[in-house]
Amino acid sequence: MAAISPTRMEDYPAWYQQVITEAELAENSSTRGSMVIKPWGYGIWQRIQMLFDQQLVILGYENAYFPLLIPLKHLEKEAEHVQGFAKECAVVTHHRLVEDEEGGLKPDGKLEEPFVIRPTSETIIGESMAKWVQSYRDLPLRINQWANVMRWEMRTRMFLRTSEFLWQEAHAAYATADQADKEAREALVAYKAFAEGVLAMPVIAGEKTVDERFPGATNTYCIEAMMQDGKALQAGTSHFLGQSFAKAADIRFSDEQGEHQHVWTTSFGMSTRLIGGLIMTHSDDDGLVLPPKVAPKQAVILPIYRTDEEKQSVLAACHDLKAKIEAVVWDGEPVRVLVDDRDMRGGDKTWQWVKKGIPLRIEIGPRDLAAKSAVIKRRDQGVKEKVVLDWQACVDAIADVFTQMQQGLLSQAQSRMEAHITDVDSLEAFEAFFAKSTGFVRCFAVDSESILPKLKALNVSARCMPWEDNDQEGTCIFTGKKVLRKIVFAKAY
Amino acid sequence: MAAISPTRMEDYPAWYQQVITEAELAENSSTRGSMVIKPWGYGIWQRIQMLFDQQLVILGYENAYFPLLIPLKHLEKEAEHVQGFAKECAVVTHHRLVEDEEGGLKPDGKLEEPFVIRPTSETIIGESMAKWVQSYRDLPLRINQWANVMRWEMRTRMFLRTSEFLWQEAHAAYATADQADKEAREALVAYKAFAEGVLAMPVIAGEKTVDERFPGATNTYCIEAMMQDGKALQAGTSHFLGQSFAKAADIRFSDEQGEHQHVWTTSFGMSTRLIGGLIMTHSDDDGLVLPPKVAPKQAVILPIYRTDEEKQSVLAACHDLKAKIEAVVWDGEPVRVLVDDRDMRGGDKTWQWVKKGIPLRIEIGPRDLAAKSAVIKRRDQGVKEKVVLDWQACVDAIADVFTQMQQGLLSQAQSRMEAHITDVDSLEAFEAFFAKSTGFVRCFAVDSESILPKLKALNVSARCMPWEDNDQEGTCIFTGKKVLRKIVFAKAY
Repeated sequence: MAAISPTRMEDYPAWYQQVITEAELAENSSTRGSMVIKPWGYGIWQRIQMLFDQQLVILGYENAYFPLLIPLKHLEKEAEHVQGFAKECAVVTHHRLVEDEEGGLKPDGKLEEPFVIRPTSETIIGESMAKWVQSYRDLPLRINQWANVMRWEMRTRMFLRTSEFLWQEAHAAYATADQADKEAREALVAYKAFAEGVLAMPVIAGEKTVDERFPGATNTYCIEAMMQDGKALQAGTSHFLGQSFAKAADIRFSDEQGEHQHVWTTSFGMSTRLIGGLIMTHSDDDGLVLPPKVAPKQAVILPIYRTDEEKQSVLAACHDLKAKIEAVVWDGEPVRVLVDDRDMRGGDKTWQWVKKGIPLRIEIGPRDLAAKSAVIKRRDQGVKEKVVLDWQACVDAIADVFTQMQQGLLSQAQSRMEAHITDVDSLEAFEAFFAKSTGFVRCFAVDSESILPKLKALNVSARCMPWEDNDQEGTCIFTGKKVLRKIVFAKAY
Repeated sequence: MAAISPTRMEDYPAWYQQVITEAELAENSSTRGSMVIKPWGYGIWQRIQMLFDQQLVILGYENAYFPLLIPLKHLEKEAEHVQGFAKECAVVTHHRLVEDEEGGLKPDGKLEEPFVIRPTSETIIGESMAKWVQSYRDLPLRINQWANVMRWEMRTRMFLRTSEFLWQEAHAAYATADQADKEAREALVAYKAFAEGVLAMPVIAGEKTVDERFPGATNTYCIEAMMQDGKALQAGTSHFLGQSFAKAADIRFSDEQGEHQHVWTTSFGMSTRLIGGLIMTHSDDDGLVLPPKVAPKQAVILPIYRTDEEKQSVLAACHDLKAKIEAVVWDGEPVRVLVDDRDMRGGDKTWQWVKKGIPLRIEIGPRDLAAKSAVIKRRDQGVKEKVVLDWQACVDAIADVFTQMQQGLLSQAQSRMEAHITDVDSLEAFEAFFAKSTGFVRCFAVDSESILPKLKALNVSARCMPWEDNDQEGTCIFTGKKVLRKIVFAKAY
């Protein structure tokens, strides 16, 4: 009997929602399209923040904070950008409330100029960059913010697509196009390393087709992950923005010759959507499975007892073992372990932790006391598998076990992704694949909107032009034209 | 010649703005009332977040995240609360933009029900608490969020009063009034310890008068700091909310007897305003002064050289010393030190760091190389004071120096505050004081709105009824009535 109903086979989307509910990650709120991120879910986000923030420092970024509200006049300056976001903007038009006729409240104090809640911050950060950049000595300028953003989505799904979401958005300005483009690519390499190294979520790194670019960008790079149902999830994007935003915000510098030039800008972001990807990459029919690097707690010690006397001695042993485990350093940090001494049925307690995906459960009962042993259960193995270890052996093993779990989850997901990438060389094969299968299809194809109608008919999109192993010439399956790159296609979240 | 113009004596408010500008803490944006928090300012906020988050864990709080937008119907439920915030709410009324007649943009897609950008989150968190709390076993429930909030202020001042600000808001639900009130007080004790222990900012802890309570609260506790100009700054508040929010959101639990009861709630918050308090507590006419615990960087090593050859050997020595200093642990963390190797005039560079308030500047020039020495300058001492130490002595001294600075800044501020608290026992003395002085006045007074007109005439407000040394009976200077507590009054930010 699986802990999550329905199972993945029975109804994948419903299973996904149920995993979120049972793991207490998030819940819907009465604010349309916005979710409440509960402590266990937010704990995962804090791990992502903390670990990716270290990467941002290495990439030369400093954190700052910019206004939530963007004046309309800023948005208007970059035409493509506006067009991309105008349909989904939350607009602030009033600055107070007054009582209405029925004793309720209504907006009052109409603003002369409305504001938009940031859907992304290129335009408002551009305003500051224009002040901060004067000379080539001020470049490159690299700024990041961790913030909430808002895109008014009509069809939402927790973590994957919500009106409000949390993210990191990095913005940089450079003296040359080459350096900007190079660093936009390097940011994507950092995303790939993070997705695979921390989230154990394998991704394909590549370039978006023209139609899938960020509104206003010259080029968009992305990492695409494959979920267990074979659908693609865009897990992070990095944009080379050319000079369009620099011109809109008039960000100029004087070069070494004293000539005034517009800078070249980039931006890259990843969001709470990653948690959706994490769920759909590793979880099973018993609930969430978390790689130890992102688990808010990596191990729980569960005391098992019947009498008050047993309780006392078992709990003492649990806290002793906790102290020993906390002294273990794995991946540069002390192991995060707790003793769950809540007064509730042992079975219920165990299943809560299984569904929350804690990597290790360690049980100590009265019989373990004499043997100084504990029963170890790994979340990445079947619920019945266990190992009995004495306490010291448990402490000694823990770092290796986490390393195995972290690597095991990645290689499992890697194998699954590779098994579900299909190369095709004809439109017939392409159509036949998507008529009955999910997964990624890789083939030679033109980067042109002329192929969009065929893709739409199959409910498929171009995910990216992969960077790796993609320098052959071939024949586009849609047009018969010679092309220099393959494109990966898939149904997508 | 002071680095900041005007000086504190010349024009305190203008000095304050100038310190912010010169230390690169923040700047105004084109979004009315919202500021851009620049990396050095945001770095201070990240220190505050990190250090207070540890206290929240000790108090039993877990972090979560709730929607930015609050449906009007939630706000309407708590009448006093609405009244308190209705005049300063940013209201979202539309969910897209379309082109207007002149090719600009205008709001479109009117929402059936408008939303308010959270001015505080009692009501939206109450909605979740009503779902999460069923039984007495679910209590106490303690939740915190780090978030941006919006109060549409007409007169803004960077950090002290901005429309959007960043804060921490903690919300808890309890089975009994006693426990709720007790923990609301304990939260204030944690705030006081944090303000004094981390920010080196002495505060008076006490209870707000009825008129100064949070809208909807049964009781509000606060910490009040004294700025260098003698004005008060409310630096943090903790509220015992009684059952008003619990009833509005219908948060009920079944007690041990199976009876359904409403919970008792609390909330407490502190914000980026603390950075304003920090500036006005310690800074001088040369700019910002930072206690080492909150300084984003605690020491800068400044290489001094003329030739390229000198540069190479001096820089090598600087990086050697940096590595040694980074290995020093102070207050549980490695010392945060950088080498500033930017190619600019040494004097300009030094003054930048003085104005940014970095606790220590360490200079190494060619003559120091042979002696393996460095020149140490403390920000809390005059700009000309310095000590020459050999490198090892410098490394050995650093932890003690930080401890001295941290304590010295606190005791300096403490002495100043104490020197500017005046006890009065007549209305004449009260009026005479505020006619010519700033500072805190302490006297017996009734907690009644009847005294408000007199206070308003003097532009003074009741700051709090201090907890300490405040259990005598005396005569209210305004009414002649017998009262049991003194109140502290001041002009306030």
